[in-house]
This record gives sequence, C-alpha cells and structure tokens, in this order.
Amino acid sequence: MPYVNFKITREGATAEQKAALIKGVTQLLVDVLGKNPQTTVVVIDEVDTDNWGIGGESVTVRRRDGR
Amino acid sequence: MPYVNFKITREGATAEQKAALIKGVTQLLVDVLGKNPQTTVVVIDEVDTDNWGIGGESVTVRRRDGR
Amino acid sequence: MPYVNFKITREGATAEQKAALIKGVTQLLVDVLGKNPQTTVVVIDEVDTDNWGIGGESVTVRRRDGR
Amino acid sequence: MPYVNFKITREGATAEQKAALIKGVTQLLVDVLGKNPQTTVVVIDEVDTDNWGIGGESVTVRRRDGR
Amino acid sequence: MPYVNFKITREGATAEQKAALIKGVTQLLVDVLGKNPQTTVVVIDEVDTDNWGIGGESVTVRRRDGR
Amino acid sequence: MPYVNFKITREGATAEQKAALIKGVTQLLVDVLGKNPQTTVVVIDEVDTDNWGIGGESVTVRRRDGR
Repeated sequence: MPYVNFKITREGATAEQKAALIKGVTQLLVDVLGKNPQTTVVVIDEVDTDNWGIGGESVTVRRRDGR
Repeated sequence: MPYVNFKITREGATAEQKAALIKGVTQLLVDVLGKNPQTTVVVIDEVDTDNWGIGGESVTVRRRDGR
Repeated sequence: MPYVNFKITREGATAEQKAALIKGVTQLLVDVLGKNPQTTVVVIDEVDTDNWGIGGESVTVRRRDGR
Repeated sequence: MPYVNFKITREGATAEQKAALIKGVTQLLVDVLGKNPQTTVVVIDEVDTDNWGIGGESVTVRRRDGR
Repeated sequence: MPYVNFKITREGATAEQKAALIKGVTQLLVDVLGKNPQTTVVVIDEVDTDNWGIGGESVTVRRRDGR
Repeated sequence: MPYVNFKITREGATAEQKAALIKGVTQLLVDVLGKNPQTTVVVIDEVDTDNWGIGGESVTVRRRDGR
C-alpha cells in the first residue's frame, strides 16, 4: 500500500532503467517493512532541466557551465 | 482552500473527463467539509505507463502481458 | 491504480468525514474513468494553519482577523 | 536541504522566469531560515490548463469564458 | 540530485527501518542511473491510518475488519 | 492560482518564519510571473529529521556526527 514518488531530471532514462527503479524500490519496501508489493505504487516524474534547481540555479545552466 | 492532486496513467482521458474529476472532487469537499469551492485547487498529473509501477513492474509491462 | 492526495487544514475533520472523502473520490474515479477501486490509493494530509498560506498570509492570521 | 515544489499552469513561462523562481526561493530560504543553498532543491511543474481546476472548473474553461 | 518521497502508514516504523529505506533507495539511484548520492534527497511521510484509503475505505477500517 | 509546497526539516521554525516564507514566495510569483496572490496557495511540510535523508543517511545521524 505504500506510495513512492521519484523525481529525476529528464535526461534519457530508459524504460529498462525506470523498470529497475520500480522493481528495486518495491523490493526494498518488502525487505525493510514487510509491505505487500501487489499494492505498492511507484510514480516516476521526469523533470526538464530548466525546471530543476539546485544551488539557486537551474540544472540547464549548471550543465552548460560544467558544474 | 483545499488542494487536491490526482495522479492517473496517461491513457487518453479527455478534457471532459478531467473537467468531471475537477467538478466532482470540488463538490465532494463542499458536501463533506463545507469547503469554499472558489479557493479549492485541483491538479491532475497524467503519468506515462513506463513511469507508473504497481506490483513491482511498470504498467506498460502489465498491459502488454494482460495483467 | 490512481493516487489521490488531499491537503486540507487541520481543523478537526473527523474519521467519518475523512472516510467520506476516501469513499467519494474513489467512486468518482470509477464513475468518470472506470478505474479499479481496489487499487485506488487516497492520502489525506492535514496541515497546521500556521503552515498554510493563501493571499500571502497564513490561515492562522486570516482566521484571527476574520478573513 | 529544503525541497520546494512549484506548480503553475503551462502558459509560456520562459527559462529566465523559471530561473528567477529558482534563484528567488532559494535566497528566501537562506534569508528566513539560514538554509544552505547548495543543497536546496527546487522543482517546477507546469500543468496543462485542462488539468488545473479552481472553483470547480478547469482553467481552460475559465480562460475561454473570461474568468 | 534526485528527490524521493515515500508515503507509508504510520504503524511503528523504527528509525533504523527508515534509515534503511533512505540508504537503500539512494544506492538504487546510484546503481540504476549513476546519480550522485550526496545530493539525493529522501523524505518519508508517515500517514495516520484514518487518513489513508484503499479500496474506497480507510486503513483503520480495513485493519479492524481484518482486510 | 499557483501552488507551492515547501518541505523543511522540523527544527523549530517559528510561526513568524513560516509567515515570512508564505509572504515571500507569494510575492516572488507576483514579481516573476504576475500571478494573483489571492489564489496562490502555499503549504509548508515540516519533516522529522529521522524521516529526511541526504547522502544516503538520515539528518538525525548527520547532526549527531557533526555533518
């Protein structure tokens, strides 16, 4: 019954990688808390680099400047 | 003043269906809690089936395999 | 499989009222989009009035000033 | 270390405007709470007007009707 | 730089179990996507069983009725 | 109409500080995007340090170890 939301920058994660996140975090909740995987919901949000900030600037700018 | 966030898979919900969710949940908050509809905010996120997991696998895989 | 998150101010909603929100929005998703209620997850967050702002001020201040 | 999530309607915010939100809210957290900007994360979600409701109707309808 | 939000029912998860979720999902993002663990943020929300619904009813009711 | 969600660790932010966050981010949205402050909603979530992770460990552990 848990709900997990990942937010990552949109930089080409493949369907296989996203499936690995879903599988891995669902298993983590089984192992750590004994949660039922059948009702564990995972949502992955991919966010444009213009829309993600850290250190007060966008990831677009950081990537451009090599930070 | 309440805020409601729906997350659904992106599988062709129409503008009319989304309007029905907005209208319905706003009225529900009026009926149950007496909330002011004028300041009730509703946001619907549609999520690609690759990015939604349940039972440890993506909805894309579940649909393909008829689960 | 949908996920719904309500955020409301913490002002004494009862267990019965919260159950009515859960039941109502789950049924809304059945009626509008044909979603399976068995995997529809609803989470209600109750937020202190100091921690909720609208119009640039907290709900605590608005309540005190009769707005 | 704070995390800030903006949700705004998708109506043409520019990269510069989004950068200004990121910079401004990061500085606000420095000024008010002394938070470290280097680990302050900001995510901006832009939401289609069909998917945003207020007053029980979508923003698409409100814009069309001049509300 | 990823952000992960877990929502689980408030049913006695220990600090050790929560630390295991934080460690496990951070490592998962390293393994699958090569993300930098130093800027990976994880937030765990524990939700009262009255405030969590599945199948149209609260977890409180489901637990009471043995579902 | 925008919605802003802050997540910060629960470490004694005062009502005045939270009011300053609400006022400041609402004004930021006026200045940058011309948003209407009357319908701008801000929600501040304060999260226990056991429930917040960065660098793969909880803030509780980081504080204890002087990181």
